[in-house]
Amino acid sequence: MSEAAQTDPLVLFMPSGKRGRFPVGTPILDAARKLGVYVESVCGGRATCGRCQIEVQEGSFAKHKIVSSLDHISPVGPKEKRYAEVRTIPEGRRLSCSAQILGDLVIDVPQDTVVNAQVIRKAATDRTFDRNPAIQLCYVEVDEPDMHKPLGDLDRLNAMLEKDWGFKNILVAQHLLPEVQKILRKGNWGVTAAIHRDIEGSRPNLIALWPGLHNEGYGIACDIGSTTIAMHLVSLLSGRVVASSGTSNPQIRFGEDLMSRVSYVMMNPDGREAMTKAVRQAINELTVKVCTEGGVDPNDILDAVFVANPIMHHLFLGIDPTELGQAPFALAVSGAVHTWSREIDLAINHGARVYLLPCIAGHVGADAAGATLAEGPHRQDKMMLLVDVGTNAEIVLGNRQRVVAASSPTGPAFEGAEISSGQRAAPGAIERVRIDPETLEPRFRVIGVDKWSDEDGFAEAAASVGVTGICGSAIIEVVAEMYLSGIISEDGVVDGAMAAKSPRIIQNGRTFSYLLHDGEPRITVTQNDIRAIQLAKAALYAGIKLLMEKQGIDHVDTICFAGAFGTFIDPKYAMVLGLIPDCDLSDVKAVGNAAGTGALMALLNRGHRREIEHLVSRIEKIETALEGNFQQLFVNAMAMPNKVDAFPNLSTVVTLPERKAPSDDGEGGGRRRRRSRE
Amino acid sequence: MSEAAQTDPLVLFMPSGKRGRFPVGTPILDAARKLGVYVESVCGGRATCGRCQIEVQEGSFAKHKIVSSLDHISPVGPKEKRYAEVRTIPEGRRLSCSAQILGDLVIDVPQDTVVNAQVIRKAATDRTFDRNPAIQLCYVEVDEPDMHKPLGDLDRLNAMLEKDWGFKNILVAQHLLPEVQKILRKGNWGVTAAIHRDIEGSRPNLIALWPGLHNEGYGIACDIGSTTIAMHLVSLLSGRVVASSGTSNPQIRFGEDLMSRVSYVMMNPDGREAMTKAVRQAINELTVKVCTEGGVDPNDILDAVFVANPIMHHLFLGIDPTELGQAPFALAVSGAVHTWSREIDLAINHGARVYLLPCIAGHVGADAAGATLAEGPHRQDKMMLLVDVGTNAEIVLGNRQRVVAASSPTGPAFEGAEISSGQRAAPGAIERVRIDPETLEPRFRVIGVDKWSDEDGFAEAAASVGVTGICGSAIIEVVAEMYLSGIISEDGVVDGAMAAKSPRIIQNGRTFSYLLHDGEPRITVTQNDIRAIQLAKAALYAGIKLLMEKQGIDHVDTICFAGAFGTFIDPKYAMVLGLIPDCDLSDVKAVGNAAGTGALMALLNRGHRREIEHLVSRIEKIETALEGNFQQLFVNAMAMPNKVDAFPNLSTVVTLPERKAPSDDGEGGGRRRRRSRE
Repeated sequence: MSEAAQTDPLVLFMPSGKRGRFPVGTPILDAARKLGVYVESVCGGRATCGRCQIEVQEGSFAKHKIVSSLDHISPVGPKEKRYAEVRTIPEGRRLSCSAQILGDLVIDVPQDTVVNAQVIRKAATDRTFDRNPAIQLCYVEVDEPDMHKPLGDLDRLNAMLEKDWGFKNILVAQHLLPEVQKILRKGNWGVTAAIHRDIEGSRPNLIALWPGLHNEGYGIACDIGSTTIAMHLVSLLSGRVVASSGTSNPQIRFGEDLMSRVSYVMMNPDGREAMTKAVRQAINELTVKVCTEGGVDPNDILDAVFVANPIMHHLFLGIDPTELGQAPFALAVSGAVHTWSREIDLAINHGARVYLLPCIAGHVGADAAGATLAEGPHRQDKMMLLVDVGTNAEIVLGNRQRVVAASSPTGPAFEGAEISSGQRAAPGAIERVRIDPETLEPRFRVIGVDKWSDEDGFAEAAASVGVTGICGSAIIEVVAEMYLSGIISEDGVVDGAMAAKSPRIIQNGRTFSYLLHDGEPRITVTQNDIRAIQLAKAALYAGIKLLMEKQGIDHVDTICFAGAFGTFIDPKYAMVLGLIPDCDLSDVKAVGNAAGTGALMALLNRGHRREIEHLVSRIEKIETALEGNFQQLFVNAMAMPNKVDAFPNLSTVVTLPERKAPSDDGEGGGRRRRRSRE
Repeated sequence: MSEAAQTDPLVLFMPSGKRGRFPVGTPILDAARKLGVYVESVCGGRATCGRCQIEVQEGSFAKHKIVSSLDHISPVGPKEKRYAEVRTIPEGRRLSCSAQILGDLVIDVPQDTVVNAQVIRKAATDRTFDRNPAIQLCYVEVDEPDMHKPLGDLDRLNAMLEKDWGFKNILVAQHLLPEVQKILRKGNWGVTAAIHRDIEGSRPNLIALWPGLHNEGYGIACDIGSTTIAMHLVSLLSGRVVASSGTSNPQIRFGEDLMSRVSYVMMNPDGREAMTKAVRQAINELTVKVCTEGGVDPNDILDAVFVANPIMHHLFLGIDPTELGQAPFALAVSGAVHTWSREIDLAINHGARVYLLPCIAGHVGADAAGATLAEGPHRQDKMMLLVDVGTNAEIVLGNRQRVVAASSPTGPAFEGAEISSGQRAAPGAIERVRIDPETLEPRFRVIGVDKWSDEDGFAEAAASVGVTGICGSAIIEVVAEMYLSGIISEDGVVDGAMAAKSPRIIQNGRTFSYLLHDGEPRITVTQNDIRAIQLAKAALYAGIKLLMEKQGIDHVDTICFAGAFGTFIDPKYAMVLGLIPDCDLSDVKAVGNAAGTGALMALLNRGHRREIEHLVSRIEKIETALEGNFQQLFVNAMAMPNKVDAFPNLSTVVTLPERKAPSDDGEGGGRRRRRSRE
């Protein structure tokens, strides 16, 4: 084709905004390819797969100096007509492989919305991702065998994949060798090949093959959490999430938290193997679940992307995590891992590829990398704080210029463990708490019950589930409300003097508790509970503060809470307790399973794989244990914030308690109150 | 290092003849590397592996204008001394990583002789091959984990493999991920990595890892024949063949010849699987055998190269060979196959690589490619005919300019099948025959007996093995001797008139037989036997003639007989019968298992892989069934040659019988005698 002339029609593709001039008669698909606009096509321009649909926008686009009209596109030809008869083309859409450019055009490439669907917790906002998957489906028609040119069937297939699709020097997965002849003949020499071309500097791989036109291919994006495994099933062709689901991580039976699982491996010779098998089996069962839900054959799953914390990452890959349980917390592998489904016993297509995002450090895993990829601090100028709270808090802080990361040992208190009435988020668990600052009477909400505890009919509604304990989000709230109502001091001590004001303040030996619910069981918040929360929040805050010091800043622009904890926590209370630094509350958001969203992005666009690999290599990893001032930051962060300190935004939404002058309250092991946190 | 100056010492490496100038003080290993001279080194210049030994030649090399002296090499330093204390360095040898250039030098790179060892049949000549194996062993010392730079253990290993050895973007075999941490710690951060870097356009692969210095790696080169599997076990570091052995192909129980095995697959649903399993098991047993013989751990086998005819090739890879049993004889895959040992159940190192040479055509397999690589018609100007006779004859004809190949359906007569007294080459089989042209009395030799049958003590010597039949080589000889002694005519008809001359000419109905041995069993050569040999030799000769026509030649310069048949056949008799075209008998040679030698070359030097891949893509494949004149050539070739025809060399070594004028002998279905073959 000759070079485009200035008189050739101008074509603008939306939403990418890419534009160029093309000779009259150029198929729109070819124009898109030339401009690098991603338009899917399986059949290679035969107008049989229907994947390359586009829409013409009509009107005068003054900004772009284009007048776009339906007259500027060739009329529906015989191939396109035939396709429309067999299948349906939505009103206004055209097949870009058949429709030709006749004049200036503004072309809309429809983006099937990717729903960042609710997996375990509430959905974040719907998002659309640019697509450039590692797997491409390519229909080809292969020459029949010819005794004059005795090239093998596979060799002729590869020759056609080079001719029609430009894939050179294809390597063929071993398991296809015995299948290729049958498939070619079954398809009457027309076959669809799945090509994987993700690994830079490596040849494209032929990983799957079907007779005839195979017009669908799927991928899974999976976040392997210590507690929960979450999975999206996605069409690699449309980008649509067809099903999302979650399941418990069965490794829980080997140990509730990560460290107890590492201990299990250290104590049991076959412990690693048992846990690897358990997590892979759970993933396979979850795959069946999403496939059933989405009506998808697991054999059509051709790519799988995983994120996980380092210990889950290692156990999933069959690596002994013992080294991660002790300094220097050496990862076996930190870079991105490329492997095959069959190498790790995944029950998807035998030739399916597997990609694991890189781990950032021994305590900051591929899940943190996934969350970072999803939220993109490195793609913006604003300074973003990204926090994923679990047994450890993984903290990422940065912007386009510089990103730093650390993990801080918050312990399991935020998850309801080590709290006297703590429990997992489940029906019956208290999830919201308010305390009247005058009467000190509480009201609360329980998971599975629609009403607040002070509303009519609550008792009846709660009868079936009961009121069984306090989950993580409510622990934050109740401690914060106790602080706001003056029950506890800035130092976190329950004020015994309040017992005179309310019978809910109960003495236990030398300390006092707060009676939240006088039922069966009795739910109280003890001084020890408050200490546990203080330790956890001090660890988190100290970690954040350390990274802020590294960045040389005293203010962050946005705060993202990733993970289950972040979804349910009320940012206001997180700030009341001083979990996070001061920030306009409208800039504090819960981003749900951002790690899973990052896996989804890496599944749909291999450009995002390179992006996170590159970013992880340049993230500065801060090891809190090696930072001399972390301990001091930690001690300073034990106290509750107050309005005279660095929380100007906080005082706009809550009234912090009036504080008396410092004095020793005779409790707390001689530790001195601190008014200021710095 | 600065550019070499004209005043720098001149260094000449032998036997390659590569030369260059290097500054005083340059280690000889570095100079070799710069010039592309292959000198092995595992330890990377630490003077611990001892693999990089060289010798200095002393004297004045006028032709090269170099005076080489031991004074021109640095004296033995402390590292080298330490190595010599622990191990032994042969007199006169130096470690090239430690020895430095002080003046002009002629360096001898010792080539451990590769013995093209006797596998099943007699050894061909010893040969030495240039080495450039696909596997490289690399010792590295890896940084210990550092909390400040939380790169994974594997990532730091890869970084060191790039720094010390130049391997970028290494891909790691999945099965090593769980092992890497243990191995690094066991080796106290010093490990030996096996890197595979054969596939052009792909990243290097880390396939095996050992703690400390692992100073040996092996490969196997294997020819999977229909009847016999032959294997060499080779040190990839020294190039030495440490053991060679063979075993029967257990697929024989599914069918004696190739076509009966294809039939077995077609008739039995699990036939293909059973045969694949059988051949892989036999290969694994043979591997154990050569490893035991060579004192090698099968886990140290890191690379395996296979050649096979197309049906064995397919069955070995688990591919149904049915398509090869019928026109158009479509190969599933004709190009070279790269795979992993574990993908095809080989009991060698789990990360070992496997390479299969390309197949030339549906009837001209990777074995023919291997033989072509070994004998190298494409590397010379002389026109070479390369013939491997089995159930089909695989024929390659060519030189540097052009190579053509075909297969011709000789049938199994040359192997002793379809012959009334035929048998495999085994003790008791007649292997050599002479017939007295006057008395028509035979004398013969039997496999397992040292004497000719007319020598004293033969009967006693033969008593233990008996005289049981005629093997392939003797069938050629007996028919040729019958022709030379006038028992059969140029047309191949046993002359009944001879019965008057000797009681060994016996009438059977309308035809006559020759009594070779009057024992138990009685061994005769029947008219049908002669017809079978005529058909076989006509097929072979017609195939050769067809290729000669394609090349436009009426004379070949050299003839190579590959395979077992070729090793035992006497070229003189092959020419008497007209199996091969006229050629100076000194230019006709048996090259033994040339296919296996080709596999060995591809194992030791990946350059030979590219060489044969490229050559196979340009070999012109001739399908005899599609050639109009093949049938005519075949009919013409039925008769025996005579001296007036195109066999001038033949008449110098044998006296061909005087022939009577053409006449119908009343036998042979009315077919006319032909005096001329053209």
